[in-house]
Amino acid sequence: MKFTERFIADKELVEKSLHAIFRGRTPHADLYDAMNYSLLAGGKRIRPILTLECCRLCGGTDVAALSLACAVEMIHTYSLIHDDLPCMDNDELRRGKPTNHMVYGEATAVLAGDGLLTAAFETALGAGAYLPAERVLLALERLAEAAGPAGMVGGQALDMAGEGHALTLPDVEELQKLKTGALITVAAELGVIAAGGGEEERSAVRAYAQKLGLAFQIRDDILDVTGDENSLGKPIGSDVGSEKTTFVTLKGIEECGRLVERLTDEATEALSVFKDPWFLRELAQVLVGRTN
Amino acid sequence: MKFTERFIADKELVEKSLHAIFRGRTPHADLYDAMNYSLLAGGKRIRPILTLECCRLCGGTDVAALSLACAVEMIHTYSLIHDDLPCMDNDELRRGKPTNHMVYGEATAVLAGDGLLTAAFETALGAGAYLPAERVLLALERLAEAAGPAGMVGGQALDMAGEGHALTLPDVEELQKLKTGALITVAAELGVIAAGGGEEERSAVRAYAQKLGLAFQIRDDILDVTGDENSLGKPIGSDVGSEKTTFVTLKGIEECGRLVERLTDEATEALSVFKDPWFLRELAQVLVGRTN
Repeated sequence: MKFTERFIADKELVEKSLHAIFRGRTPHADLYDAMNYSLLAGGKRIRPILTLECCRLCGGTDVAALSLACAVEMIHTYSLIHDDLPCMDNDELRRGKPTNHMVYGEATAVLAGDGLLTAAFETALGAGAYLPAERVLLALERLAEAAGPAGMVGGQALDMAGEGHALTLPDVEELQKLKTGALITVAAELGVIAAGGGEEERSAVRAYAQKLGLAFQIRDDILDVTGDENSLGKPIGSDVGSEKTTFVTLKGIEECGRLVERLTDEATEALSVFKDPWFLRELAQVLVGRTN
Repeated sequence: MKFTERFIADKELVEKSLHAIFRGRTPHADLYDAMNYSLLAGGKRIRPILTLECCRLCGGTDVAALSLACAVEMIHTYSLIHDDLPCMDNDELRRGKPTNHMVYGEATAVLAGDGLLTAAFETALGAGAYLPAERVLLALERLAEAAGPAGMVGGQALDMAGEGHALTLPDVEELQKLKTGALITVAAELGVIAAGGGEEERSAVRAYAQKLGLAFQIRDDILDVTGDENSLGKPIGSDVGSEKTTFVTLKGIEECGRLVERLTDEATEALSVFKDPWFLRELAQVLVGRTN
């Protein structure tokens, strides 16, 4: 109960901040509508919650972490909009709703992604009101690196290039480390940076988030085969249909299940430098579906 | 002669820096090739030269301005890649060469744009090695604002929405102010910020760059009607073909010619707060084709 209440409170705090980001701006055609359509379409808000919770764990305040948390979620959202485009994964549904380009058209969807990515840096810079300038610069450096060609964008390029090809396990691991791991990892790290934590704390939450991100991705691959369409919000078997190599096609469902358990345990162990990281520990369990 | 030599030297300095940006990075499929294809495809490099020259005008050093100058050019390049996409302007040629998606495919072109935009912030953050952190944060705030939904991306959204519709002169002015004016203006302003110049200098170069950007855009509209295909590097009449409202369709070629002259004069007048802004004065004349 304690966990669920805290999770819901964090999520509400994030949602409230996201709603405020573009409020009062002069509209330019339907650009802001398209940006808000995807930004406010729900989702678990795992990344910004990681930022908030890692900041708290290091003794920082919510206000210091919130701009950075929202920036990460904006970057995550832009990446979903662009990934769904007809020239990419060509997805028509996302979280049970029509994807951005199905509602606003391709041109606006490309621009909504561009706008969210750029505005993410504007939003992150808002942390300058609460944090020393050097700390904001460090946070931005880590964020740009994780989101850019050496991180998330590079992972998506590998993903596109790998479609229809037989990938090895190291290929798929590298791809996921960049495509989904880099942003989840930096989400956690930015919380520590916001709180003024040191390298030991940064390294601990990085390890936690890396393992957790990988576990979550493998569980996602399992659900693509075994899950039910309504709870997923997208068609079952979409990975198989596009001939993608996934952890499941490489290792089978049973071994993937064991791998998820091992990674979740390792993720929680990485938190041992902290006195009472109960929330992040429970989060890891809940995210891979062991409880709740 | 003095002007031409200085212009060429500036251009070479910018090109050299741009060539170094992704050197030595681990390749992810053909992502870096696609990014470099457009980034190193030539062009006049007006924006980064403005940054360098405005920095010098305020007593700053090249090394302080160069990261910011390159970041602006990277953002300009990403915007061209995305604007050329089939779902946007659907252009096959840019500067006489096949556009990015014609060479690398649409998916990689979208990602190359995303990668350049994100890496632009990484590059701009490199200024932190030479400038006080507060100054870098101010530069990044202005850059993100100018490039984002309240600036360049908003302008492109207005441009897309306006296609096939009859626009008024204020519509077209607002569109160009955002789509091309915002980035040119911030290019100049970042130079002043890099040099530690004050609001008077920032305001002066903003006015100069705004007028110059508008003059250059109107001249571009004129050339789309009267120019020759080889020197433009793109088909003549492409604006007319896509039924775009331009300054020329609204005011006619002759009045547009007079407007370009008036704006160029106003641009140079805006520089009166500086002691000897000879280079920027000549640049304005050269850019709109009065000399050279």
